[in-house]
Amino acid sequence: MAPVSTLRWEDQHLHILDQTLLPAQARIIELANREAVWEAIKSLRVRGAPAIGVCAAYGVLVGTRDYRDKDSTEFRKRAEDSITYLATSRPTAVNLFYALDRMRAVLKRLPEETSAADCFAALEAEADSLYAADVAMCRAIGECGAALIREGTGVLTHCNAGGLATTGYGTALAPLYAAHEQGRRFHVYADETRPLLQGARLTAWELHNAGINVTLICDSMAAVLMRDQKIHAVIVGADRIAANGDTANKIGTYGVAVLAQKHAIPFYVAAPSSTFDMDTPRGGLIPIEFRDSDEIRKAGTVQIAPPTVPVYNPAFDVTPSDLIAAFITDKGLLYPPFDTTLRRVFP
Amino acid sequence: MAPVSTLRWEDQHLHILDQTLLPAQARIIELANREAVWEAIKSLRVRGAPAIGVCAAYGVLVGTRDYRDKDSTEFRKRAEDSITYLATSRPTAVNLFYALDRMRAVLKRLPEETSAADCFAALEAEADSLYAADVAMCRAIGECGAALIREGTGVLTHCNAGGLATTGYGTALAPLYAAHEQGRRFHVYADETRPLLQGARLTAWELHNAGINVTLICDSMAAVLMRDQKIHAVIVGADRIAANGDTANKIGTYGVAVLAQKHAIPFYVAAPSSTFDMDTPRGGLIPIEFRDSDEIRKAGTVQIAPPTVPVYNPAFDVTPSDLIAAFITDKGLLYPPFDTTLRRVFP
Repeated sequence: MAPVSTLRWEDQHLHILDQTLLPAQARIIELANREAVWEAIKSLRVRGAPAIGVCAAYGVLVGTRDYRDKDSTEFRKRAEDSITYLATSRPTAVNLFYALDRMRAVLKRLPEETSAADCFAALEAEADSLYAADVAMCRAIGECGAALIREGTGVLTHCNAGGLATTGYGTALAPLYAAHEQGRRFHVYADETRPLLQGARLTAWELHNAGINVTLICDSMAAVLMRDQKIHAVIVGADRIAANGDTANKIGTYGVAVLAQKHAIPFYVAAPSSTFDMDTPRGGLIPIEFRDSDEIRKAGTVQIAPPTVPVYNPAFDVTPSDLIAAFITDKGLLYPPFDTTLRRVFP
Repeated sequence: MAPVSTLRWEDQHLHILDQTLLPAQARIIELANREAVWEAIKSLRVRGAPAIGVCAAYGVLVGTRDYRDKDSTEFRKRAEDSITYLATSRPTAVNLFYALDRMRAVLKRLPEETSAADCFAALEAEADSLYAADVAMCRAIGECGAALIREGTGVLTHCNAGGLATTGYGTALAPLYAAHEQGRRFHVYADETRPLLQGARLTAWELHNAGINVTLICDSMAAVLMRDQKIHAVIVGADRIAANGDTANKIGTYGVAVLAQKHAIPFYVAAPSSTFDMDTPRGGLIPIEFRDSDEIRKAGTVQIAPPTVPVYNPAFDVTPSDLIAAFITDKGLLYPPFDTTLRRVFP
């Protein structure tokens, strides 16, 4: 019941929606060999931590399906080799390593005498289980957050933590899909999210595609919409959440949280358990990635700013926990004091 | 002493900087006939209310300089005709009409027997006087605001109310140029100002060009810079200021003002006397222009959002006067209570 078919494994063939062509084109492509899977992850045809993990797991199947008739040793060698290879596609993606480690562990658990065909079947079951877990995680977040989306209200979101980033509902957008399924009407305002425009390219596309009312705005327009009482809740995703609730997310999130506070609008963060990093006590300790200046100085190939002007381009900012009304997670809604409530659920 | 040569009248020839080519190219072009002047105003080669007015005044000279040897009646007819024609270039530009009305009044004041050459000289003196008044207005704003720019501080600005919009220092940027001339070092952060990117294309260009330290940011990045104590003052321009101090300016200004309040950073509005509209009691009465959706859905010719997704695209927002620390004007610094202080200066 995913809003978009990010990825599909059917009759032992892997198809994905090529996200680099969005929003101009929604083209489904087959990833016919492991090199194609590697390239698709590398070049962001498939993106979003949960989706990447699942895609890589199926990539192991793509790499080994022609070895089912072979000798078991040969199959295992090919599988190990495919896992090692696919892990090099996005070197900092935690979910990628997690998914591939799970695939490797399956092989290790199988008795030595297991046939190639049975090894393949076990790997396929594991990939399907990763897929199902991702869908279930999204659904749990959606069900947990749906009640926060009231009939006739407006909801602001920033960046894309939607169905396109997962194999299911998405994380930040999951409560919206769930509320929509429950028949409630509401209106979403999507920040375009400069500089990389994930809100314009992805969020607006997938919500519009799913039949949810969505209006695209520039990031600088959220403030007046709040003052004009068009927005009654904010829901964003997260890249990493510290033990005290401080939340790193796409640049611009902190500003939205301050504006929400000024206008007495609840600000929610939706995220799966895997995003909570209980080893990091507070947000100030989360390292922030700085990105290339030309992301801001150019729009596509067009020079929109002087080529030598200095640019400040952090990819993320940290929203302090006191601006957050609640976390919407696959383990339920978590309210302040976060020091206590997070530790109880994620010990 | 303008930071950029927006416009130059020399030896009876009119040259402008073609702003449509910025920031890729800083090309000076001659406007050789009145049709070229009309087209330059229409297509924003010259832009900003003060600059447009002065350009149109010189446009009357361009349209009449070949009639100096003619009969006085023929000259006057040509001048009247040029004024009427140039007024159609930007039908809602108040400064344009003001400048052209001034030129027409000169003609009316001159005795009937005045020669064509003397009529031309009187018109030229009037255009020069409009130019000088614009430069003086900018300088007055600059001198009034320069003291607010302290050594070693950071200043945030939004959109472009700079030298490019005037024949002088600009309005919002005038205090920066003045402080720079006084030898103070400071750092400017320029919001790129979506959707039309005046901050990236114009503000970053002209400050960089003038040797002032400037860093370009996306609009959504101002909040973290404020929290990191990189910004100690905000200066913006204004499109229209109501009698109570509520200020209409480029979309995004209100959000910046809220963020400044949250971080205890003074928020200043720099504007000439002509921007204060004492006939409008409060900001809620200022009409807001909504612009074309494709300004947000496209970047140049590239489709960055689904072509049918609804878009909200107001050109301006209104910042309530309680978020404004002071107005920086050609009549001095005006502090709260604005109900009283504005009425005293602009009765």
